[in-house]
Amino acid sequence: MLIPLFASGFFFSQQKDDSLAFAKISSQILNHGEAYEELRDLTKNIGHRLSGSDAYEKATKWAVIQLKNAGADKVWLQPVKVPVWKRGKESLYIKTGNGQWQSVNMLSLGNSEGTNGKDLIGDIILVKTIEEFNALPDNAVKGKIVFFNYPFRQDFIQTFEGYGDIGKYRSSTASMVAKKGGKAVMIRSLSSATDDAPHTGAMRYDDGTEKIPAVAIGPKGAEQLDKLIQSQKVTAKLNSNCGMKGEIMSNSVIGEITGKKDQKVIVVGGHLDSWDVGEGAQDDGAGIVQSIEVLRTFKKLGLNNNHTIRAVLFANEENGNRGGETYAANLDPTREPHLFAIESDAGGYSPRGFFLEMNAAQSSQIKSWKSLFLPYGVYNIVDSYSGTDIRPMKKHQVALAGLMPDSQRYFDLHHSASDVFEAVNRRELLLGASAMTQLIYMIDKYWE
Amino acid sequence: MLIPLFASGFFFSQQKDDSLAFAKISSQILNHGEAYEELRDLTKNIGHRLSGSDAYEKATKWAVIQLKNAGADKVWLQPVKVPVWKRGKESLYIKTGNGQWQSVNMLSLGNSEGTNGKDLIGDIILVKTIEEFNALPDNAVKGKIVFFNYPFRQDFIQTFEGYGDIGKYRSSTASMVAKKGGKAVMIRSLSSATDDAPHTGAMRYDDGTEKIPAVAIGPKGAEQLDKLIQSQKVTAKLNSNCGMKGEIMSNSVIGEITGKKDQKVIVVGGHLDSWDVGEGAQDDGAGIVQSIEVLRTFKKLGLNNNHTIRAVLFANEENGNRGGETYAANLDPTREPHLFAIESDAGGYSPRGFFLEMNAAQSSQIKSWKSLFLPYGVYNIVDSYSGTDIRPMKKHQVALAGLMPDSQRYFDLHHSASDVFEAVNRRELLLGASAMTQLIYMIDKYWE
Repeated sequence: MLIPLFASGFFFSQQKDDSLAFAKISSQILNHGEAYEELRDLTKNIGHRLSGSDAYEKATKWAVIQLKNAGADKVWLQPVKVPVWKRGKESLYIKTGNGQWQSVNMLSLGNSEGTNGKDLIGDIILVKTIEEFNALPDNAVKGKIVFFNYPFRQDFIQTFEGYGDIGKYRSSTASMVAKKGGKAVMIRSLSSATDDAPHTGAMRYDDGTEKIPAVAIGPKGAEQLDKLIQSQKVTAKLNSNCGMKGEIMSNSVIGEITGKKDQKVIVVGGHLDSWDVGEGAQDDGAGIVQSIEVLRTFKKLGLNNNHTIRAVLFANEENGNRGGETYAANLDPTREPHLFAIESDAGGYSPRGFFLEMNAAQSSQIKSWKSLFLPYGVYNIVDSYSGTDIRPMKKHQVALAGLMPDSQRYFDLHHSASDVFEAVNRRELLLGASAMTQLIYMIDKYWE
Repeated sequence: MLIPLFASGFFFSQQKDDSLAFAKISSQILNHGEAYEELRDLTKNIGHRLSGSDAYEKATKWAVIQLKNAGADKVWLQPVKVPVWKRGKESLYIKTGNGQWQSVNMLSLGNSEGTNGKDLIGDIILVKTIEEFNALPDNAVKGKIVFFNYPFRQDFIQTFEGYGDIGKYRSSTASMVAKKGGKAVMIRSLSSATDDAPHTGAMRYDDGTEKIPAVAIGPKGAEQLDKLIQSQKVTAKLNSNCGMKGEIMSNSVIGEITGKKDQKVIVVGGHLDSWDVGEGAQDDGAGIVQSIEVLRTFKKLGLNNNHTIRAVLFANEENGNRGGETYAANLDPTREPHLFAIESDAGGYSPRGFFLEMNAAQSSQIKSWKSLFLPYGVYNIVDSYSGTDIRPMKKHQVALAGLMPDSQRYFDLHHSASDVFEAVNRRELLLGASAMTQLIYMIDKYWE
């Protein structure tokens, strides 16, 4: 096919300009990026920050300062009503026959109700799968504590597929067990690791079912308990104080660099809240500091954006998604049309690609930029689910995307005490910020 | 273009068979791979293992057992004469004016000579680059300790390019300084991290130059020392006992699965030795256990290889490459032709591709298999340097390759106390073993 000379010349000179801009962005961030030290500050000086907690409120104040320091023209809070869930003291012991009670590493699942500080004692029955559980008659479950030992599937290459596969064991088993008269549910953590760290995360009760306690134990503990139960009767003693404590007003934090051309908005975000264990470093402190880095880079390099680039640090992703819902509910497309939104909530690991959730023409155009991204290790641009916080904007036809980092390590630490600053690598974190800045640079330049 | 129907049908059915074999290999390794626990054993029960040390000899005995357990049909030792370098006790202090001596984190560079246990005291002069040093007159260097504060370049995406860029500061500055009458050389470690861990690694003296001491300090220490020297005179006191202590006989360890068809050999390898700090986990315990995993997988899956698949665990890569040289010197292509050799010596991180060092037809064929590798995150198959241990086989026209893992974290810990088992991720390590097994599967099947 003949290409008109003018058009091809134009195309290649554009490609060259964009390629130079990509290099400038990458070098700026790798050499001078502040996201890593900012994350150290957030994780070590504030730590975990479940929405509704004092730590979360501290984090919103911290975020306002960081956005201003990064050069945002405007910074504000968006009020969000959030649920308050508190863990409190909790313990789990098991014993066989006349043996001694032995402590088991555990975490109550997020949003679950506890035992109100009283000992809940019962015999444990073991099932490997939900299908196996469904086949049990009610009288085999009644009065028992049901232990689901379904392991995280290791054979998926993208670990998010493993997470998708195992998700219902955390979200839905409590009500299944309650319906058959069970006392409590124990699950093997949704963890790809081989250690004994328990992982928390959101569960939900079906309407009208009893809210029985739901706890997760570590992979090693699960293996050991499984073996024990195969050979003898095992009794558990659970004591916990967790539960929902109403709702309070909190905030998402928003900062933006005004566009030179119009009021159309490009969003980059992550969630400021975390679970109440570890430090919320990969989930999702990484996405927070990367989003702030995007603003800082536009400002530092004087990229002179056409559209408004807005960092949205969402409240309450982990146990309610109220931040994301509230943002979309307040979005008025006639007053403030949104061009694009991207989220980083899969960890600050080496970027490999983008998840696109948008119309075919938009998706094709982004895929046509692939050769620009390839030198940065970003090769995998696919149509897929974007991200929890930004998803509610779909109803306004906003083009959505998610950063796709390497997924191998994420579910080793996700929602566990292992999600700490030390698990984040500086270069990997910065490369994720760079990839998002590069994509936003292109969208800001070429999208109207 | 019309494709003959038969040929295209054949092609697609082959592709499908290969794709199924790839999935079988990956699932086997991710579900049942033993490399991670094997690496725990090597790193925690033997630890670092510089060639010439007792620990290295212990590692060779360990490797023989692992290869047999993995199902090797034959296991043997290949004698290798290795240099013996010992570190001994060492310390570095600095002071300004009449101040107190302050200790600085340091490591003597590998293969360097020390101060024979005597205090070497001298004023430090700071240079940022070799070019700056070259411009100094001899009398500015005479009697001084020269400190090169050249930082690891963060702006390369592939960190091996950064390592290539900074390499000469470790390998060559001692003799440069000696030629101008300097007493000793201090370098900023070849480290991409922002911590204070010093990194060792091989240096060499030019023939006929004085063998002055050469030490590395951590990135943080380097920054602080740089600032100090900018404002005042700084004196150093170095005391070290390192040095070359002759040569001894040691061994590489070799195990193989005999091919069903002929005596042609496919090599997969890494180096069994490590530097004498940390645990040699990523460098190169990872390559060792991955190579053993390749044999195990062929055996476990009954892949029924045509050619002989041989794991070579090379001695002495770090400070002499005698294992690699000896293997190639003993290779008799008429008796035992070698089809292919691949090495894993860039860390057990998520694989991203392969480095190919072979003729154009071979390289094109491997690149034509790219779509098979893509679902495993392996997308980057490029002509490049293969690996230090296997490189000497090039003179026998063996097609060479290297596993290309994600490079972001490697030079944070390479040759330092931070290179420990905990820095290795199970899934990442196993995916590297899987990618090598898949490539060897294809070569064994299609190459004659």
